[in-house]
Amino acid sequence: MKEYVKMTAGELKAEKNELSKIFGEYKNKNLKLDMSRGKPGADQLDISEGILKAVSSNGEAFAGSTDTRNYGGIDGLPDMKKLFSELLEVSPDEIIVGGNSSLNMMFDTVSRAMTHGIMGNTPWSKLPKVKFLCPVPGYDRHFGICQSFGIEMINVPMKNDGPDMDMVEKLVSGDEAVKGIWCVPKYSNPQGITYGDETVRRFARLKAAARDFRIFWDNAYFVHDLTDTPDRLLNILSECRAAGNSDICYIFASTSKITYPGGGVAAMAASVANINAAKEIIKYQTIGPDKINQLRHVRYFKNAEGVRAHMKKHARFIKPKFDTILNALETQVKPLGIAQWVAPNGGYFISLEVMPGCASAVHALLSELGVTMTNAGATYPYGKDPFDSNLRIAPTYLSEDELKTAVDMLCLCVRLAAVNKLLEGE
Amino acid sequence: MKEYVKMTAGELKAEKNELSKIFGEYKNKNLKLDMSRGKPGADQLDISEGILKAVSSNGEAFAGSTDTRNYGGIDGLPDMKKLFSELLEVSPDEIIVGGNSSLNMMFDTVSRAMTHGIMGNTPWSKLPKVKFLCPVPGYDRHFGICQSFGIEMINVPMKNDGPDMDMVEKLVSGDEAVKGIWCVPKYSNPQGITYGDETVRRFARLKAAARDFRIFWDNAYFVHDLTDTPDRLLNILSECRAAGNSDICYIFASTSKITYPGGGVAAMAASVANINAAKEIIKYQTIGPDKINQLRHVRYFKNAEGVRAHMKKHARFIKPKFDTILNALETQVKPLGIAQWVAPNGGYFISLEVMPGCASAVHALLSELGVTMTNAGATYPYGKDPFDSNLRIAPTYLSEDELKTAVDMLCLCVRLAAVNKLLEGE
Repeated sequence: MKEYVKMTAGELKAEKNELSKIFGEYKNKNLKLDMSRGKPGADQLDISEGILKAVSSNGEAFAGSTDTRNYGGIDGLPDMKKLFSELLEVSPDEIIVGGNSSLNMMFDTVSRAMTHGIMGNTPWSKLPKVKFLCPVPGYDRHFGICQSFGIEMINVPMKNDGPDMDMVEKLVSGDEAVKGIWCVPKYSNPQGITYGDETVRRFARLKAAARDFRIFWDNAYFVHDLTDTPDRLLNILSECRAAGNSDICYIFASTSKITYPGGGVAAMAASVANINAAKEIIKYQTIGPDKINQLRHVRYFKNAEGVRAHMKKHARFIKPKFDTILNALETQVKPLGIAQWVAPNGGYFISLEVMPGCASAVHALLSELGVTMTNAGATYPYGKDPFDSNLRIAPTYLSEDELKTAVDMLCLCVRLAAVNKLLEGE
Repeated sequence: MKEYVKMTAGELKAEKNELSKIFGEYKNKNLKLDMSRGKPGADQLDISEGILKAVSSNGEAFAGSTDTRNYGGIDGLPDMKKLFSELLEVSPDEIIVGGNSSLNMMFDTVSRAMTHGIMGNTPWSKLPKVKFLCPVPGYDRHFGICQSFGIEMINVPMKNDGPDMDMVEKLVSGDEAVKGIWCVPKYSNPQGITYGDETVRRFARLKAAARDFRIFWDNAYFVHDLTDTPDRLLNILSECRAAGNSDICYIFASTSKITYPGGGVAAMAASVANINAAKEIIKYQTIGPDKINQLRHVRYFKNAEGVRAHMKKHARFIKPKFDTILNALETQVKPLGIAQWVAPNGGYFISLEVMPGCASAVHALLSELGVTMTNAGATYPYGKDPFDSNLRIAPTYLSEDELKTAVDMLCLCVRLAAVNKLLEGE
């Protein structure tokens, strides 16, 4: 195999003919495969069956003297706070356990800042402009929250060990309108990058122009390791405290990809001052979350070790799927010099950088073959990838066989789009 | 027994001595009884045990081809939408099934109006003033939402068949800053009053000055009947449609007091235009609610008839408790002419109107005896009962025996406070 950029126009045309033939054959198969979202596979969901049986009688619905079936407990069942506190390495009074979705807790946190303001500061809705920094590529639903609230988003490039911190420091310290930054610090969505120690410490030491600037630390993949040598992420809250900057971060996490997406339990963690300020508003919003489902989780896992053992089972399903994608890319695409990616140690995604100007084309070609990918551009604010080069691959939902077919088609389309691009000038 | 107002000062003093003696005896018992919130009793919670077993294996987690364990379904499981649509007599596309709390859906609806505005209108946070009408006495948590968002509340007196509609019509049609009204239209909290047909029709025909005025129709006790001759409430959405006013109301309901408070399922209903506008924002807030718990409810109840049969079981526990309260009031208080109340056909509360200026005193006396009641004033906006006369009694949580003791103490304190009041001038 020869690098595409080194091919002559004639060689490229021959390659295009060959690829187009295979494309036509795939097309005739009329397949329908979804690689768009980070959904666990059915086999993964099956391993949490114990959750469904964990509270199945009246007698089992008590957590000590607390009847989980009745009202109360605005910040969650104490035992569930304890479990999250072990996993996130914070104290239980630094935790609010919520409903089924950390996305919901993030949206609500932004919403409270808009309507009530953060810890006595002006509500964001009263300000002429609010800006968030968005490490890119990133998670489309974070950007969606900003877009929905009319918050201006500023792209910050990701490096190998996290966001470009020179840029972050400059923007955060220089502009009072900058109120937040979205981070997926471990196995980032979509690249699978874990922030390095120095990156975390620089976050913790941030001197923000705005007193109500907050780091939105979406630790979505905090226990979602795929290998025996998992990445280690520093504890942001401890680092912030050490830097005399305790109130600067909100941490979010959930069991959506531990037990059930939708049927899991979400939490936010932050300094006691932040937590109490949030509860002062949340107390008007709800009498409390679903404690029965929290008890199911506590009973099933018992402790943090139980969760970690459970995650090893997930890894057994997910790792081979990641390998299938990575092997295909390695053999079918790498020698051609037309794409880059990182092999992550965990998380749910592989981020593929194709040739600039080719991501939409790859997406369109795959759609023609019946393969759904996350929209090209989705990993950037406003859906606009300035280079049109990033694609997010979600390996988990398809079966191993479907995935093999899907990734072969992906490699084909990446090649075809590159050939087309290179032939454009001819 | 003689009416207190007809007693001489001497008779009142003798009465006071007698009551004070009994008060002292109760006080020595050091009891601790909670009549403050509308919490179901443990016996009531026990009857829903089938919910805990309704989805207890992987195979049972499917609703047709939908795997309820995985992501998706922003407005809820179709079968759960259908169940609520039968109960609320609206169509499934007029429903959003949410998480565990209708209070949460109400708070979020106000919050969306603040940040995004309703159906293209100016976000309320951008307006100089927003006002809500509050029928009084009413539900403290409704008032809490307004207070939290800085919405000005205007008291509207309740009559026997609902709010004073002359006043409602005048305020709603005359002031563009009036954006909403809180209603508990069936078995109102706290009085147990059901709005009459003409009241509902006048609501449906409201000509609001503000295009984004909405009726917040909190149908919390829609199936919570206690007798074989339950109150009937007209369908507000049909009436609004008939009046060419489809978009003027939001309806809220939940299974909190059908199955489990906290472990139940909430819903909102409204015109398709309202529902779609809400979903356009909610799609940034969540990927979807807990579908597993919705499936538990669907499996357990099967249909609306199943819910109604279940509510008959609740009534068997609750009705005797209501009777205990009402009988005690009837025999110990009524002949004295010092309080009024209505005997409701359903719901969770009895509203007690004591002598003006006496509600706080009754509350304080009861606290001294170890009985917790909802704070005097709580049934009014800002916690301020202009007459200091309303107390909310929640009969459900205590056992029958505890309740008998509690209500005897309540009657005693109502009498003692009245005697003290009448002696004030002496």
